[in-house]
Amino acid sequence: MEDGFDFIALGTVTSPQGFRAGATYAGLKKNEAGVLDLGILFCEVPCVATALFTKNKIKAAPVVVSQQRLKSGKAVAVVVNSGCANAFVGEQGMDDASEMAELTARNLGILPTDILVASTGVIGERLPMELIREGINHIALSEEGGHQLARAIMTTDTVPKETAVAVRVDGSQFIVGGVAKGSGMIHPDLATLLCFLTTDAAVDIDFLKSALRRAVDISLNMVSIDGDTSPNDTVLIMANGQAGNETISSGSRLAEAFQQALDQVCIYLAKSIARDGEGATKLIEVTVKGAANLDEARLAARTVISSPLVKSAVHGNDPNWGRIVVAVGRSGVEMVESKIDLYIGDVCLVRGGCPVSFNRGQVMDVLRQDEVSISLQFNLGSGGATAWGCDLSEEYVTINSQYTT
Amino acid sequence: MEDGFDFIALGTVTSPQGFRAGATYAGLKKNEAGVLDLGILFCEVPCVATALFTKNKIKAAPVVVSQQRLKSGKAVAVVVNSGCANAFVGEQGMDDASEMAELTARNLGILPTDILVASTGVIGERLPMELIREGINHIALSEEGGHQLARAIMTTDTVPKETAVAVRVDGSQFIVGGVAKGSGMIHPDLATLLCFLTTDAAVDIDFLKSALRRAVDISLNMVSIDGDTSPNDTVLIMANGQAGNETISSGSRLAEAFQQALDQVCIYLAKSIARDGEGATKLIEVTVKGAANLDEARLAARTVISSPLVKSAVHGNDPNWGRIVVAVGRSGVEMVESKIDLYIGDVCLVRGGCPVSFNRGQVMDVLRQDEVSISLQFNLGSGGATAWGCDLSEEYVTINSQYTT
Repeated sequence: MEDGFDFIALGTVTSPQGFRAGATYAGLKKNEAGVLDLGILFCEVPCVATALFTKNKIKAAPVVVSQQRLKSGKAVAVVVNSGCANAFVGEQGMDDASEMAELTARNLGILPTDILVASTGVIGERLPMELIREGINHIALSEEGGHQLARAIMTTDTVPKETAVAVRVDGSQFIVGGVAKGSGMIHPDLATLLCFLTTDAAVDIDFLKSALRRAVDISLNMVSIDGDTSPNDTVLIMANGQAGNETISSGSRLAEAFQQALDQVCIYLAKSIARDGEGATKLIEVTVKGAANLDEARLAARTVISSPLVKSAVHGNDPNWGRIVVAVGRSGVEMVESKIDLYIGDVCLVRGGCPVSFNRGQVMDVLRQDEVSISLQFNLGSGGATAWGCDLSEEYVTINSQYTT
Repeated sequence: MEDGFDFIALGTVTSPQGFRAGATYAGLKKNEAGVLDLGILFCEVPCVATALFTKNKIKAAPVVVSQQRLKSGKAVAVVVNSGCANAFVGEQGMDDASEMAELTARNLGILPTDILVASTGVIGERLPMELIREGINHIALSEEGGHQLARAIMTTDTVPKETAVAVRVDGSQFIVGGVAKGSGMIHPDLATLLCFLTTDAAVDIDFLKSALRRAVDISLNMVSIDGDTSPNDTVLIMANGQAGNETISSGSRLAEAFQQALDQVCIYLAKSIARDGEGATKLIEVTVKGAANLDEARLAARTVISSPLVKSAVHGNDPNWGRIVVAVGRSGVEMVESKIDLYIGDVCLVRGGCPVSFNRGQVMDVLRQDEVSISLQFNLGSGGATAWGCDLSEEYVTINSQYTT
């Protein structure tokens, strides 16, 4: 086989060698009987591991626990629940998160300190520990279990998000896989709710940290659904070395290939989250080129993708492009009105800061697609970035006005 | 009569002596035949005048024109249209804004340079100048015309916003009046679409500038509807001295009374804008106390009032209070989880960072009111602030998905 990157059919977090997962219905999601809500991701051997966590000043108890444990740079398993965030519940939250790890450790025959914890769901309610104590005994781990885990972490998500990429380079082979969940309270502030990544490559911890940061910066950090962020945001990667490659470190032979594979997995998951945003009917991709620098390109793209007015207009297939340039103006980045070009799909609406006559029907046809691309050329410098989001629909409001009722 | 402040029944921008206004239907709002869309505010004598303008880097042509003319610190009249923002249309926009002033000057027999210009509506479309040339001749000015002006500046607003306060202090009397419009693309970034304020007090220009800034900072700058800002934001105040008082300057006898009256008018208009936010069914008031300082209190209050998840929950009468504390956490202000108290209406939901058992039905009753208050006590310092906004309804999306179609 030739060298290259291939998305694996039905790829998931257990596609890399040595990882197993499973999930059960513990009863944490009040209104959804029989829906998976408690899962475990496990590796046969200790993994090199690192994570990025929420920047919200309110941090859920499992985030605090996992942050503490990851100082070792190692992990063996993750236990995760949906339906309850275990956030803002006082000291009890820490006890409950620790107990989740202890229960898991007992079943797996490993140390509690090798286990990370994650939760997602309603904030300000205590974990129903009786349900978790009972449920955790019913989780069976398997090499196909990634699909179950992808479902167990869903909240308002309508589809599981999972993928894996196989890499072949110079006779070496390894796989990077991942699962993630959206789909509300999503904004680019380090991470985006829950994302678990795995690889059977052997990776040096320092390189793994920088690679994760780089991949997240161009993927999950470029997604916005609604501008809110969660106290539970966690993006974790575990590398177990089972592929038998030489350890990948900064500048080493496989470093770039690993980075590219990780980027691809993270971008796939990021776009999946955006496409499945609460109430979304389509994916929006905003590309900024020619900004003064990279940071300004990122800020401009993120501001446009976050604008409720742009999102509403796309929802209604309304070519109201003025809102796009005004969102850029609000972002505060350097811009010269008379230099801006704007495209929706392939249709140019603004050239050199002047509106171009366009066929409204043609643009409305572009807006009716499942994926809508908006491109801005600033013609100032070499900064470029892409952000993803979704349209704002009446359904978003309906979902979020009845979340706990 | 005793000294004091009184809201004037049916008060408006022409309640202060010497101001006249009027409006007509020029045909600028495509789908709304017979709706006022072009108006003039005029003073018999030259006024001391100052304004605050949008911080959006995209500035509408009328903003650029008015900014330039206000360097003199004087103005006699304002001409304003709705239905078209005259923004992002290239150089033509400047010509059109200038012509609007010239046409008005000719009719009023004054200099074009004494006339300010304002526009609001769709961005990226040229002003239909034929309609404006024709319409401007049909505007009749009167002392009751403030009510017409308040209507002529409406876009998606469902009600006009106007008020006036009469002040009596130590034998002096004067009036402060104002009109404003919302109701989308509203976020606290200096101003909030259009607001015209008048007074018959004699006011020194330097004091007028600082008084306007202070009043706007605690009123219009504390309103958020949707986080977007407009290229047309203008808050103008004109003072004509007709009340015959001694000129008010910083520290002078009437300074504090003038400031209080201006604050009252601006807060009234700010709350009116919030209450009439696009799709709004209720007013939300967020009060932060005990923050480390004023800036942090302002930021925290504004972040909570801007959260689409909080706004959606209030819309659905869902006591999902976790979203409120998490929005505070996202704001980045100093906070200690274990010190926070949270109230919805009079009901305490969190005390010292711990959830308090509460009667859900009682909180849902509070949330069903026309006005919902959310109070946070940080217990850290003396910073306090209040912000206003509205719930996020399906109707917001419906309005904004079909704005130009």
